[in-house]
Amino acid sequence: MKIVRFIYQRKLFWGRLAGETVTLLADQPFDKIKFTRRKLPLKKVRLLAPTAPSKIILTGLNYRDHARELKMPIPQEPLIFLKPNTTVIGPGAKIIYPHNVQRLDYEAELAVVIGKRARFIPQQKAAKYILGYTCLNDVTARDLQKKDIQWTRAKSFDSFCPVGPWIETELNPQDLKISLYLNARLRQNSSTRNLIFSVDELVAFVSGIMTVLPGDVISTGTPPGVGSMQRGDRVSVEIEGVGRLDNRVA
Amino acid sequence: MKIVRFIYQRKLFWGRLAGETVTLLADQPFDKIKFTRRKLPLKKVRLLAPTAPSKIILTGLNYRDHARELKMPIPQEPLIFLKPNTTVIGPGAKIIYPHNVQRLDYEAELAVVIGKRARFIPQQKAAKYILGYTCLNDVTARDLQKKDIQWTRAKSFDSFCPVGPWIETELNPQDLKISLYLNARLRQNSSTRNLIFSVDELVAFVSGIMTVLPGDVISTGTPPGVGSMQRGDRVSVEIEGVGRLDNRVA
Repeated sequence: MKIVRFIYQRKLFWGRLAGETVTLLADQPFDKIKFTRRKLPLKKVRLLAPTAPSKIILTGLNYRDHARELKMPIPQEPLIFLKPNTTVIGPGAKIIYPHNVQRLDYEAELAVVIGKRARFIPQQKAAKYILGYTCLNDVTARDLQKKDIQWTRAKSFDSFCPVGPWIETELNPQDLKISLYLNARLRQNSSTRNLIFSVDELVAFVSGIMTVLPGDVISTGTPPGVGSMQRGDRVSVEIEGVGRLDNRVA
Repeated sequence: MKIVRFIYQRKLFWGRLAGETVTLLADQPFDKIKFTRRKLPLKKVRLLAPTAPSKIILTGLNYRDHARELKMPIPQEPLIFLKPNTTVIGPGAKIIYPHNVQRLDYEAELAVVIGKRARFIPQQKAAKYILGYTCLNDVTARDLQKKDIQWTRAKSFDSFCPVGPWIETELNPQDLKISLYLNARLRQNSSTRNLIFSVDELVAFVSGIMTVLPGDVISTGTPPGVGSMQRGDRVSVEIEGVGRLDNRVA
């Protein structure tokens, strides 16, 4: 099932998307998904990021092929970092190029959306706590990342976390094609089978540190081919079985 | 004015503390502070962290005397990092020593609580966006901080951000004594006059990166004397004109 979050006539709704039709949900999709009878055509709604996370946890250097590209050793444990939730934008929204940034990079990622509050989730039970999967672009000011050593500032500007276009709830994340297109040219192209730490391992690792809440996002890292964007560029993250997240740099 | 947030008869309230009496507020203290006529004795309520921030932004290496202690150069710009809001605990709550951590450190800090949503706050206008000040203990797993290089995991365990006991709204933050006591022995002892970047500079810097929201916390960094805690220890952050934040390590 594809879960969307959207604005219609100035109000916020959740819905299920099937084809070009959205069926409205009675409530947030976390405890239990309850449908209403109300339907809307997709083209009449404005999609938002499909979750409003309390926190966004991201993973560094988690693709074998990316580690090889950077000539880095394979990490022994996941390396995590955070983005504030004020970075989140939805499909079609604009990535704002900050005036004091010299190099702005895209990073295509498969993101996990948490469905239930939990701590210490065993790897074997991770699937029970996952609502579904979506695309995420971990926009990064590469110059500031190098300068600060700590990654926070470089990844925390408003609009630096496009998420969407929806949450796919029925998906096996183990071998999905993941691509990034810049102005329709393929720039990143890998598969989630190259993940060093699997989705289930990441969910277990993160929840061993902090309580995860419904709607929280755990992103799984980016494959090789990271590069920079210019003002006016169109950037798309495409994940097999999920969909395509399009944004423009303003 | 001292603003408290507390539980009374299983309900959450905000209040103003004067002496040993709490006057209940009609609502959150952000837009405008509205009092009710209801009063409670302080000893009848359970204080919580005085804010429930959407995000917590912290500053590394921001005391001149601490930079000297570490033989580090004075930074040219603030160095920021984040803690997830699931780290927040209130006065009297327990800091949980994770089983996989070898060295758990205290860090006494003066924290700013944001009063209004804003972006790009000029330094000269920062005071208008500050609700007040409180004490914060930036609990850090020092071994994981060194291992990961990125500070996120080391600072993100549940309970790693004691905040409180209240927000002091009338305070000049420029020259306040800041102390940390471990089992009643003084371990950190400095003044906010040693801050490299002032409160107003930090608010301007952070809001130049991200939108700040009511209740968000910007912490100003820790003075010299950082050290480790053991299970059973009592740890207190005391700031002149604010008060004293007591916690125990469990």
